[in-house]
Amino acid sequence: MESKSEQNEWSSGVWAHLTTVRQQSPLVQCITNFVSMDLVANTLLSAGASPAMVHSVVEIPDFTPHIHALCVNVGTLTPDWLPSMKTAAELASKLGKPWVLDPAAVSCSGFRLKACLELVKLKPTVIKGNGSEIIALSSASRGHTKGADSSHESTDAIEAAKSLALSSGAVVAVSGAVDIVTDGKQVIGVHNGTKMMQKITATGCSLAGLVAAFLAIDSSRVLEATVSAMSVFGIAGELGEAMANGPASLRMHLIDSLYGLDETTVLKRVNVTRLG
Amino acid sequence: MESKSEQNEWSSGVWAHLTTVRQQSPLVQCITNFVSMDLVANTLLSAGASPAMVHSVVEIPDFTPHIHALCVNVGTLTPDWLPSMKTAAELASKLGKPWVLDPAAVSCSGFRLKACLELVKLKPTVIKGNGSEIIALSSASRGHTKGADSSHESTDAIEAAKSLALSSGAVVAVSGAVDIVTDGKQVIGVHNGTKMMQKITATGCSLAGLVAAFLAIDSSRVLEATVSAMSVFGIAGELGEAMANGPASLRMHLIDSLYGLDETTVLKRVNVTRLG
Amino acid sequence: MESKSEQNEWSSGVWAHLTTVRQQSPLVQCITNFVSMDLVANTLLSAGASPAMVHSVVEIPDFTPHIHALCVNVGTLTPDWLPSMKTAAELASKLGKPWVLDPAAVSCSGFRLKACLELVKLKPTVIKGNGSEIIALSSASRGHTKGADSSHESTDAIEAAKSLALSSGAVVAVSGAVDIVTDGKQVIGVHNGTKMMQKITATGCSLAGLVAAFLAIDSSRVLEATVSAMSVFGIAGELGEAMANGPASLRMHLIDSLYGLDETTVLKRVNVTRLG
Repeated sequence: MESKSEQNEWSSGVWAHLTTVRQQSPLVQCITNFVSMDLVANTLLSAGASPAMVHSVVEIPDFTPHIHALCVNVGTLTPDWLPSMKTAAELASKLGKPWVLDPAAVSCSGFRLKACLELVKLKPTVIKGNGSEIIALSSASRGHTKGADSSHESTDAIEAAKSLALSSGAVVAVSGAVDIVTDGKQVIGVHNGTKMMQKITATGCSLAGLVAAFLAIDSSRVLEATVSAMSVFGIAGELGEAMANGPASLRMHLIDSLYGLDETTVLKRVNVTRLG
Repeated sequence: MESKSEQNEWSSGVWAHLTTVRQQSPLVQCITNFVSMDLVANTLLSAGASPAMVHSVVEIPDFTPHIHALCVNVGTLTPDWLPSMKTAAELASKLGKPWVLDPAAVSCSGFRLKACLELVKLKPTVIKGNGSEIIALSSASRGHTKGADSSHESTDAIEAAKSLALSSGAVVAVSGAVDIVTDGKQVIGVHNGTKMMQKITATGCSLAGLVAAFLAIDSSRVLEATVSAMSVFGIAGELGEAMANGPASLRMHLIDSLYGLDETTVLKRVNVTRLG
Repeated sequence: MESKSEQNEWSSGVWAHLTTVRQQSPLVQCITNFVSMDLVANTLLSAGASPAMVHSVVEIPDFTPHIHALCVNVGTLTPDWLPSMKTAAELASKLGKPWVLDPAAVSCSGFRLKACLELVKLKPTVIKGNGSEIIALSSASRGHTKGADSSHESTDAIEAAKSLALSSGAVVAVSGAVDIVTDGKQVIGVHNGTKMMQKITATGCSLAGLVAAFLAIDSSRVLEATVSAMSVFGIAGELGEAMANGPASLRMHLIDSLYGLDETTVLKRVNVTRLG
């Protein structure tokens, strides 16, 4: 069982991170899939960040130096998008800007798996996926997952996540019934969120964007910022679900809740535990 | 007038199909237009299916063999997307997987009409469009429709639909005030749905995706599975409209309703008649 | 202070424009960014117009002659989309059809700024941006804005807007706390709308689409039609915000309100003043 003081520390950290995102409104470049662009942008706006869906390779040299964080998501990857992702990731890494890799449906093709392995080599600050994706990426196996949905419990993915964290140097975040965040040594569990969030497309992508926003304002504490983003998104989902009649109203209430989150609610609802 | 027992048969068939989709969660690959990706994915998720927006031609050989059905929609067609659509459709046909063609705004250009005619030759299981689209595709005329909206009543399209069904071998579904489904001989009318659904972009595309999901779990009864999908979507729209104040809240309530549909409601509301 | 009769004139003009859009349902071609396609289409549908997201360069010669107005938005510009935009804009100008340029995030790269300057040369009927965008485009400076968000008050942009209007021949519309519309001589302020609308992605893009729809039905009075579109959109936002709990419910209520707007509400809420 978590000590009460450690729980309080997580809670106040989450609130501090959210407050800072709202104050600083970090500019987050998102090179993400077509399905998710709307929800990713709205998630970032409602959290207080400033999204920029700039993906053309010709714009990256001018634009990326001005961002505070980058999010790359391969959900609708085609060969012509990969150079943009790599160029932006390389530049972000070179300039010391945090960036998040979301290896969405990584094992749906050999092409996508190879692309993700190449992106991993460009030193993402955080890799965020569901259990299947992290297991696939970690093992670089060629097994095919069932679309972008998770068919592995996130807890099954702990060892894969630790291994990927150690080999890549990234903090690895696994979304699932319990979200897992690990730097290869520490393993943190985030118990916020609800099952119905998986019935809304692009919630995973939006979470990746949110992680980027939180890294933007605390890039020296990657593990903690990632945990905070995941907890905040999960709490917004919990509040949303209490008002929802199904996935579409959950989506609306989630975004509204994220926008309106106050200190009392955050401090009361953060549910983070040390798992290892 | 429909006999009560025949109506009951349709109703129980619709419920059985929906139940099976929820149980089996078929993987539905959607190569669809940019406008609709979000709503198509959310429609499939709320119905219990598993959407995969995988459209890169390089991924199709790896991915398409694992799907249970395919939906191809030409709503924002460009020449570089056509090879993906054709490759996926060919592979689906070859592997005996059902696939749906949505010839969205088919007559907006000679390019698009030609592309749709090529896709028709790849043996779609179902072709779903509005009245104008089906008439245009059936006659392969070069007349220009007014955007993607229907400017013909679906009932006017019955003869065109029958003709297209016979020449293509596909079941043809025409959305409209009354939805029509025909295999060239039988003509079934689906009287569910509401007029305001046409004020939401991508409802037609979402219906095409839903048809694919229903075909995935009953590919031997194409006509019946198509009727079921159209009735389910229409019922969700009726329930949604009862709670809506306009198109945007209808969109939300439609998806919520699709997610929550129960047996009593389905059995009570299915409104299917034999028209010929 | 505005005279009461002048205010009444604006109000009745706004209502007349909206009524005509609903009656004529103009076909509006939108070559817009990926993030906004869904909301732009739904905005146009809810206002009574007929959106067509047709962007392939090969379709423009067949399709664009049939439209009533065009909207071009560079929000996710890549080099392969620019020829479509230019071809459609040229054809629209040649055929005397009104078209709107939304120079979204114009200063995020040299490429985008250059592309927008080229588009301006193709004689847009209206250029609509936020303060930063209009200032950047007007000065053709290479300064970098912070994503697509406005970081200048729209009133600061009046001189830039007037200058751009005079040099381009377009009416220039600047969205902000007070929306500004100018033909280079007259300066009109639209005081409708709410601050929270900026927390929804693609509201600016949707407004540009709506302006195109209003131009379609009154292309001889560009300034007035633009003012009307901006006032209508702002009023829908005000009504929406009164029912909203955050940005996502605002988005829903805004579209519902736009769909349901009645004469009494419009006449009461239009808030337009002559600023110069």
